Amino acid sequence: MPNYVVGHKVPDSDSICSAIALSYLKTTLGEPTVPARLGELSPETKFILERFGFEEPELKLSYAGESLYIVDHSDRVQGPDDIDDATILGIIDHHKLGDITTSAPLECWIRPVGCTNTIIKMMYDFHDVEIPKDIAGAMMCAILSDTVIFKSPTCTTADIKCVEALAEIAGIDDPKELGMEMFKVKSAVEDTPMRDLVLRDFKDFNMNGNLVGIGQLEVVDLAIFDSFKDDLHADLKALREEGNRHSTILLLTDIMKEGSELLVVSEDESVIEKAYDVKLDNGRVWIDGIMSRKKQVVPPLQDAFGAK
Amino acid sequence: MPNYVVGHKVPDSDSICSAIALSYLKTTLGEPTVPARLGELSPETKFILERFGFEEPELKLSYAGESLYIVDHSDRVQGPDDIDDATILGIIDHHKLGDITTSAPLECWIRPVGCTNTIIKMMYDFHDVEIPKDIAGAMMCAILSDTVIFKSPTCTTADIKCVEALAEIAGIDDPKELGMEMFKVKSAVEDTPMRDLVLRDFKDFNMNGNLVGIGQLEVVDLAIFDSFKDDLHADLKALREEGNRHSTILLLTDIMKEGSELLVVSEDESVIEKAYDVKLDNGRVWIDGIMSRKKQVVPPLQDAFGAK
Ligand SMILES: [Mn+2]
Ligand SMILES: [Mn+2]
Repeated sequence: MPNYVVGHKVPDSDSICSAIALSYLKTTLGEPTVPARLGELSPETKFILERFGFEEPELKLSYAGESLYIVDHSDRVQGPDDIDDATILGIIDHHKLGDITTSAPLECWIRPVGCTNTIIKMMYDFHDVEIPKDIAGAMMCAILSDTVIFKSPTCTTADIKCVEALAEIAGIDDPKELGMEMFKVKSAVEDTPMRDLVLRDFKDFNMNGNLVGIGQLEVVDLAIFDSFKDDLHADLKALREEGNRHSTILLLTDIMKEGSELLVVSEDESVIEKAYDVKLDNGRVWIDGIMSRKKQVVPPLQDAFGAK
Repeated sequence: MPNYVVGHKVPDSDSICSAIALSYLKTTLGEPTVPARLGELSPETKFILERFGFEEPELKLSYAGESLYIVDHSDRVQGPDDIDDATILGIIDHHKLGDITTSAPLECWIRPVGCTNTIIKMMYDFHDVEIPKDIAGAMMCAILSDTVIFKSPTCTTADIKCVEALAEIAGIDDPKELGMEMFKVKSAVEDTPMRDLVLRDFKDFNMNGNLVGIGQLEVVDLAIFDSFKDDLHADLKALREEGNRHSTILLLTDIMKEGSELLVVSEDESVIEKAYDVKLDNGRVWIDGIMSRKKQVVPPLQDAFGAK
C-alpha cells in the first residue's frame, strides 16, 4: 500500500505541484508514494499540468487507515476530514503552524518562505536527488503563483533563487514571462458561476472558535470584476450562512497595482475593521499593498479574534 | 532585544544543549539569540556543562512580548505558560507534533530521530556554519543521553553518524565511554528527595482532555531503587492528586537489561493496562524492551485515551 501526499481543500497550484514533487522524491528514496488531491483543479493548475505533461492527481477524500504526508497546510479544517484515523508521516508547509497534532514523531519541514515547493527543493538538495525536468517546471510555476511573480510580501530570496535553479533544470529562459501567461489564465473569469469564483482559492480558518472563510482571486486587472462584483458579494453572503461562518471575506487582488479590494460579510464587521485599521464601506474596502492572505490578512485577523 | 531559545519544563540534557547550540548558530547567522531554561538542571546536565565549560543558561519562565525558538517539544503544557503572548520564530523537535500553534509563518525542523541535537547538526550543515569544539561535545552528550548510548528504539542511523561527526570535532576518542560515565552520574540517586527523583525527567501530556504526567529514571541497575521504590510510588500518588492528573506514571528504565518497570497511579488503571496490553500488579509492571517514553509509552497511551 503506497503512502499519499495531499495538499489542502480547494487545492491551489502549490498544493498540487508539491504533492507531485514530494511523491516523486519519496518514491525515489524507496518509499512508494502517490500524489492526491482534495478537490477540483483551478484553470491555473490545469494550465501547469498540461504545460509539463502531468495527469491530474487522484481525487481522494478519505485517508482512514492510510499513511500520508500533508503539504501546504497544517490546519485541521483545511485537511482531510478523517485525518484522525490516518497516520501523518510528515508536514511540508510555509504557513502559520495550525492545529494538526500527531501521536507519533514525524517529519516537518516548515519555513517562512513564499511557497511549499521552495521547501521541497531543499528536500531534494538534502537527499541529493536530481529533479526531473518536468517536475522542476511544475515546481517553478507553483512558486511563481504563490509569490505572484515575486511581488508578494511573502516572497523571499530563497524563493527567487529557487525559481532560477528550477528554470535552469526545466530549460525555461524567461520564468517571469511564463508567470504572466499563467496569471492571464488565472484572470479568465467569464462564464464562471459566482460560487466557483468565490471557492476557486478559498480557505477556512478556526479563529479562536470562530469559523472564518477567506477566498482570494488574483488578477491582472481588477476592472474585470466591475460588472458582477455585487453578485460575488451576494454569493459570499450566502456562503457565510450555509457554512455557519462568523465571516466570509473575498480578496480581489490586483497583481499589477499591488493591492486588494476586500469584500466582507460578517456577523461583526468591527473585528475586521479593527484587524486592518480600516472602515468598510458597504462591506468593501481597498487596501494598498495587501497581496498575501497568509502574511497580511490572516495574522492580524487571528490577533483581533484572539483579543476579543 | 535578543531572541531566546528554550526547551521544555523540567529540562533534560537535550533541551539545554540544543538551546545552547541553536543560540550560537542563530547568533552567528546575525540574529542575536540567547539560551534559556524553564527549570533546574539535572545532575547529568550539570556534568555535561562542566565537562565542556558552559555556564547554566538563564532561568527564564516568562516570555510575554519576546520572540523565541522552542526546542525539544511542541506541546503547550511543556512550554512556557505565557507562550500565547510571545512570538514563536521556530520549533526544533523530534517528538510527536503537539498543540502549539502560531498566528504567523515560522521555521520548523521536526524529524523522527533520537535527539533534537541531531537536527541542530543538520541546521549547522545547511547553513554551512562550523560547530565550535565545546558545543560539539555538549551536542554529542545530549544525543548519547536521549538515545541511551544508541540502545533506545528511537535511535536512528542519523543519530549514530551525528555522534561520530561531533566526536571528531570535539576531539573525543570514545563517545560510548563518556556516555557510560554520564549515565553513572545519572544513576546516582542517594540522598535525593523522592519528589526530586520523580520530577527529574517528568513531562505532562494532554491526552484527549486528560492530564497525564510521565516521569522516567534511566539507570545502569534497577536494584538501586529496591530500598525506596514504595516511597517513590507514594510520592507519585501525591503528585497525581496535587496536579489533578488523570494518571502519573514513572518509568524505571534499566539501560543494561533494556526494559522498564512502570510505577502507575491512575484514576482508571484499565486505560494503562489496555495501552500496553499488560496486567498491573499493585500498580507496577516490568515490560521488556520499553526504553523510550516518546516512542513506546506515549503513543499507545494517547491512542488508548483517544479510543475511550
Ligand atoms: Mn502555498
Ligand atoms: Mn530530546
